[in-house]
Amino acid sequence: MPVLPFANRKRPILLGHRGLPTRAEGNTRPAFLAAVEAGLDGIETDVQRTKDGVLVIHHDFVVGLRLISDLDYAELRELRPQMMTLDALLELLEPYPDFLLNLELKSIPGLEDGRAHELADRVAGWSGRRRVWISSYDPVALLKVREHQPEIPLGYLFRVYDTGRMAELLGIEAVHPHWQLVSAARLARWHERGLVVATWTVNNAGKVRELASLGVDVIMGDDAEALLASKKQTQ
Amino acid sequence: MPVLPFANRKRPILLGHRGLPTRAEGNTRPAFLAAVEAGLDGIETDVQRTKDGVLVIHHDFVVGLRLISDLDYAELRELRPQMMTLDALLELLEPYPDFLLNLELKSIPGLEDGRAHELADRVAGWSGRRRVWISSYDPVALLKVREHQPEIPLGYLFRVYDTGRMAELLGIEAVHPHWQLVSAARLARWHERGLVVATWTVNNAGKVRELASLGVDVIMGDDAEALLASKKQTQ
Repeated sequence: MPVLPFANRKRPILLGHRGLPTRAEGNTRPAFLAAVEAGLDGIETDVQRTKDGVLVIHHDFVVGLRLISDLDYAELRELRPQMMTLDALLELLEPYPDFLLNLELKSIPGLEDGRAHELADRVAGWSGRRRVWISSYDPVALLKVREHQPEIPLGYLFRVYDTGRMAELLGIEAVHPHWQLVSAARLARWHERGLVVATWTVNNAGKVRELASLGVDVIMGDDAEALLASKKQTQ
Repeated sequence: MPVLPFANRKRPILLGHRGLPTRAEGNTRPAFLAAVEAGLDGIETDVQRTKDGVLVIHHDFVVGLRLISDLDYAELRELRPQMMTLDALLELLEPYPDFLLNLELKSIPGLEDGRAHELADRVAGWSGRRRVWISSYDPVALLKVREHQPEIPLGYLFRVYDTGRMAELLGIEAVHPHWQLVSAARLARWHERGLVVATWTVNNAGKVRELASLGVDVIMGDDAEALLASKKQTQ
């Protein structure tokens, strides 16, 4: 059974959302380095796939009106020269052996271009694999990663209804609910079921402290000061 | 435990795909009536939801470049006057008490507009509810229907990889694989696990006969003659 890569660390784990987008454009090299420099525990970021099979770091399925999955990497690069590949991100993070990486696999059921298997293989083959976990809204993608590379820890994302039951059905390690879904009662239920709870996107210091005192395991946000407020409280 | 609404009928069950699209535009009133008249066992069709909560019969998430989920029903109706509502379809099928209805709920994880609960309620409240089952590519939508209206039979759709395991995890009744995924070995595995197997979209009489002789439970297609070829064989 995989274990999230921070089993023995002090909670909450603080992740910059797409790097540190208050310092530089999210999901770019400067934003990722800003998260390292700010003293966060790691980052959360997004993985898409081009038509010719390059895994790239981007939140939306589209650039402008074009689907990334319909573009070759060369075309995409002309449209968005600053977009990083996953390979470039892994290389960038190589020198920081304690820095955590939560990769959100962007996928929808029925989009069957091999991205789940490819991402699983790339993570499993990386020297820093022990500090990575993969999350997704798409339970089918999570199932494919699990079947293909069973050692990678997994989290299931949801934002409006509590569908945490899906994580139990899949037998995975974490739920990633939107922070508005986190209550003491739900948190207790998820924890009772052995699930790690990672919530997002929390940009208010008071809310960060509140979630930290409830016992949330991972908090993701855009603003390092708001996130680090939870640590100041306990010092 | 719900049972697919044809437990004691002779197999394979033959469904017109979006009605009978070789006779009239798919997913319209004439196409649905053509499927009844052709002597098919039922139809498969698609459910979308407008921004103001009207469930409508349409395959794609868009009309032109507009998302149906971003349009009010009045706007949608101007763009596509022939588009039926789910209510109109149920009314149309009211007089045919043996005619089966497989509703594909169009949904993607993260699209949380209430459509799963609304469709579940509409089906559960219909006089013909015992001849309906709901299918979806979206396991989260299936989970929501099951939690909300546990009596409705459910099928899980997939088309490129065999992810039939998801149906087992969800504890639902059917798998809906694309016909290219159906082999004797897979069919045996699905049947061993208690799953009904419904396949699509089969438009070649030879292929219909082959799938029928393998023991597939439900075959969906565009062409009544090709589908009915399986019955001629066994008479």
